[in-house]
Amino acid sequence: MTGGTTSKGPPPRGFPVEEFEMRLERAQRAMAAAGLDALLLCTEPEVRWFTGFLTLFWQSPTRPWFLVVPKAGKPVAVIPEIGAPVMARTWIEDIRSWPAPQPDDEGISLLAGALRELAGEGGRIGLPMGHESSLRMPLADLERLKAWLPDSAWADATPLIHGLRRIKSEREIAKIAHVCGLASAGFEGLGGWLAEGMSLAEVFRGFRRDLIGRGADDVPYLVGAGAPAGYADVISPPSERPLEAGDVVMMDTGATFDGYWCDFDRNVALGQADDRAKRAYETLWRATEAGLAAARPGATCADLFRAMAAVIEDAGYRAGNVGRFGHGLGMQLTEHPSHALWDRTVLEPGMVLTLEPGLEFAPGLGQVHEEDIVVRAGGAELLTRRAPPELPVL
Amino acid sequence: MTGGTTSKGPPPRGFPVEEFEMRLERAQRAMAAAGLDALLLCTEPEVRWFTGFLTLFWQSPTRPWFLVVPKAGKPVAVIPEIGAPVMARTWIEDIRSWPAPQPDDEGISLLAGALRELAGEGGRIGLPMGHESSLRMPLADLERLKAWLPDSAWADATPLIHGLRRIKSEREIAKIAHVCGLASAGFEGLGGWLAEGMSLAEVFRGFRRDLIGRGADDVPYLVGAGAPAGYADVISPPSERPLEAGDVVMMDTGATFDGYWCDFDRNVALGQADDRAKRAYETLWRATEAGLAAARPGATCADLFRAMAAVIEDAGYRAGNVGRFGHGLGMQLTEHPSHALWDRTVLEPGMVLTLEPGLEFAPGLGQVHEEDIVVRAGGAELLTRRAPPELPVL
Repeated sequence: MTGGTTSKGPPPRGFPVEEFEMRLERAQRAMAAAGLDALLLCTEPEVRWFTGFLTLFWQSPTRPWFLVVPKAGKPVAVIPEIGAPVMARTWIEDIRSWPAPQPDDEGISLLAGALRELAGEGGRIGLPMGHESSLRMPLADLERLKAWLPDSAWADATPLIHGLRRIKSEREIAKIAHVCGLASAGFEGLGGWLAEGMSLAEVFRGFRRDLIGRGADDVPYLVGAGAPAGYADVISPPSERPLEAGDVVMMDTGATFDGYWCDFDRNVALGQADDRAKRAYETLWRATEAGLAAARPGATCADLFRAMAAVIEDAGYRAGNVGRFGHGLGMQLTEHPSHALWDRTVLEPGMVLTLEPGLEFAPGLGQVHEEDIVVRAGGAELLTRRAPPELPVL
Repeated sequence: MTGGTTSKGPPPRGFPVEEFEMRLERAQRAMAAAGLDALLLCTEPEVRWFTGFLTLFWQSPTRPWFLVVPKAGKPVAVIPEIGAPVMARTWIEDIRSWPAPQPDDEGISLLAGALRELAGEGGRIGLPMGHESSLRMPLADLERLKAWLPDSAWADATPLIHGLRRIKSEREIAKIAHVCGLASAGFEGLGGWLAEGMSLAEVFRGFRRDLIGRGADDVPYLVGAGAPAGYADVISPPSERPLEAGDVVMMDTGATFDGYWCDFDRNVALGQADDRAKRAYETLWRATEAGLAAARPGATCADLFRAMAAVIEDAGYRAGNVGRFGHGLGMQLTEHPSHALWDRTVLEPGMVLTLEPGLEFAPGLGQVHEEDIVVRAGGAELLTRRAPPELPVL
């Protein structure tokens, strides 16, 4: 829990081939244990985790992208022609493409052929179908694919994918730590320019430009609130209302570096802070401390939730409506697992997590705090620079 | 084709209730024609189109969001508790929520109840399953939902949704025109600061900050290339290589305002331009002119493709590998329809489209051009400020 990132310049972009070899080896070990002959993946983080394929082109919903991971040998990309030159720069060698878009057969016959070859007739194919997953291809095309492969068995690969992705390599941790450091510096610089009379929309604009200027690739997630003492929701676009003395401004940001995210927030008061705001802040700061202390290998996510909830309840508050007190973090703003009573995931070294306790001090009025950590053998290591223990007043 | 946006300040954020009433009326007319008792929607643009619910929180994959559109009466939102305060500010009145995340029942029993009530036992439920669609909920949860509703019939709602969304209202067009104007000004300002020796990564950083400073909410999509005469792919992240004299820099940007996108690119040469680059540029400029002339109500997307392709082929070039020469635009970077031979969609007033011809002048080396238009009764109206007819040399 020494914490904080030093500013020694950005880590290298991309990954060496050995990183992907290590990931594939872990995956194939897990596939063998689960009795899977192949994995079929069609979502951005999963394709990127195995290949390094990084492009903003996923913003376009038109074309599906497929990756087949066989039980032995390297993954095979089945992708639109437009992506083949970029995929060819990764460590993937077997790239099969079609001239997408082509709705009559949007890669499905090509994909069926690859699966038949790599999983075998009657093979068992893992596809993520569980919690937090989505199907980034037309449902009707999945039905077509299944009709092409009548003897294949389909299994839910969600637990397997969660198990792989939740442990980060040191190279991944370095990228997350870097962007956490950039956003920490951005938050610490707020006092230099955030002022009463500005709208939250202006503040967001300034903060986005500031983080990009500091070296973030983008700031795809920025939500927040500015209201007396606390706020009713934590996912809104910014208001055009001028901020006033006594407002508590909360900004929660997901900035990116080389495809990896930070996700944390900071609260500041303008001009003055009332006692409700100060007390809520101090309670959440202590709840986060309890989370930091609890985040040791062997503890569960439920343990983390209980540790933070105890501080909040002891202070006489209700928990917030976010449904959990933090989550995994890495190639996505939020990842499995969840700090909630139902999540018995056991913490292991290499897991990158947010600690995000929230409370309500009046109906529909509350605060949230958030820090990002990596679990080490000895306990939590902060990736963000720790928020101050008392509500800062600008 | 008078073209260009004037800078008269941003249009108002959000939409009046009558906009959503008009959308719902169009939808329910189409549902009656298709024999649907309800629509089930779970993707961001569809939920927002019917409700106005705007949040970046969709970046988190953890929680599904559902909207049920009945054949009569207002839509019903079935959403996580965390989103209820924001949804309550829209025109939607019936909001049913659960304390997500909760993997054992992630809204499915609640959703099943709403569908049973609104579609009736044995009702026919439309769900998008076709081209360009995805399922933003776990596949296993869809199976659970179907098991809760054994008598319901499920139909593909893709053509219905495409038909609704491809015609934009004047309020939507104003938002798209506004962000097209901001990005046009940003591109026109490149000459003031883009220079040899900068890397494309630096140029992207500068361009993102510039557009946000001009009033864009964000620049979620920015891809491009900088290479002698042309480029091999059009979807890459930027390189750190210093740009050199003779490089053609292409930037393709999707910036946003109030949830609406622009999507267009510009090409400029640094210091000097070789004849291959100039001739490719002029050919694509003329191909775009042909697309502008062809984009009249009654023509098809295939007609637009042919008009642009004829110019490229007459000049002796091969078409690029993008698979189409433009597409719909609005709440997403790319939307149905596609300017391709297989797309017989008939142009109608109110359709917002990109014209995006591309060519190769050597294997793996080419250019792309792009403009954004709205189809009017009299023909195409430019939303972007037209690129100059000859390759600009900075």
